Amino acid sequence: MIVRTTDEITGTERDVAAGHWRSKRIVLGGDGVGFSFHETTIEPNSVNEFHYANHIEAVWVVEGEGTLLDRETGTSYPLAPGTMYLLNKHDRHTVTTRTRMRMLCVFDPPVVGTEVHDEYGVYPLVAVPN
Amino acid sequence: MIVRTTDEITGTERDVAAGHWRSKRIVLGGDGVGFSFHETTIEPNSVNEFHYANHIEAVWVVEGEGTLLDRETGTSYPLAPGTMYLLNKHDRHTVTTRTRMRMLCVFDPPVVGTEVHDEYGVYPLVAVPN
Repeated sequence: MIVRTTDEITGTERDVAAGHWRSKRIVLGGDGVGFSFHETTIEPNSVNEFHYANHIEAVWVVEGEGTLLDRETGTSYPLAPGTMYLLNKHDRHTVTTRTRMRMLCVFDPPVVGTEVHDEYGVYPLVAVPN
Repeated sequence: MIVRTTDEITGTERDVAAGHWRSKRIVLGGDGVGFSFHETTIEPNSVNEFHYANHIEAVWVVEGEGTLLDRETGTSYPLAPGTMYLLNKHDRHTVTTRTRMRMLCVFDPPVVGTEVHDEYGVYPLVAVPN
């Protein structure tokens, strides 16, 4: 059993910020399970293009409001607490925030922790170090 | 892309209650990804014995307070918003709530939705139907 708190990982290598977002990864690839688990916060009034070409991601909104644009289809969805989106087709998407947003996110395969979004907003696939 | 809300699944077959807990499964095995994703609420002042012999589970507390007992080691941990526990060794454990608790939970392999805890609090492994 592994027990950790969001406070404990704040300011460590598990706490990564870029662009308008910040991601606290409480479970990472090095923990040896088949997914990683992150708390992501995004600044208010920001536009964020994402694309996870190598990962499946599920995002469940805990706080805040905004809009999700599926750039594959052009469809927009409102985001509010209780909304979940599953990027099961590596969908290119844009999150536009109205307020500060907080969401819990699952990645499969697990994010290792050394990835940064490349110029296309893609996380590369990184092997779990032994 | 799949977009759903907690409200949408409330009262459907994705909303399962037993004992002192209720689990709203917004991503299930049938969605075709490698994990399921649940919002679990547990009643205040309750004692809940769990054991997932066939699944890895990560639980991140969003609301409420209680105590987690690792029945394998006898160690207890306080539970509060921001605490995460990862049952990476199928650990037998007991959650004792002080207030109503709400947590977001990841299961790998995914829960299919037809499982109920058996007399030992174990979810059986059920194949994803095609």
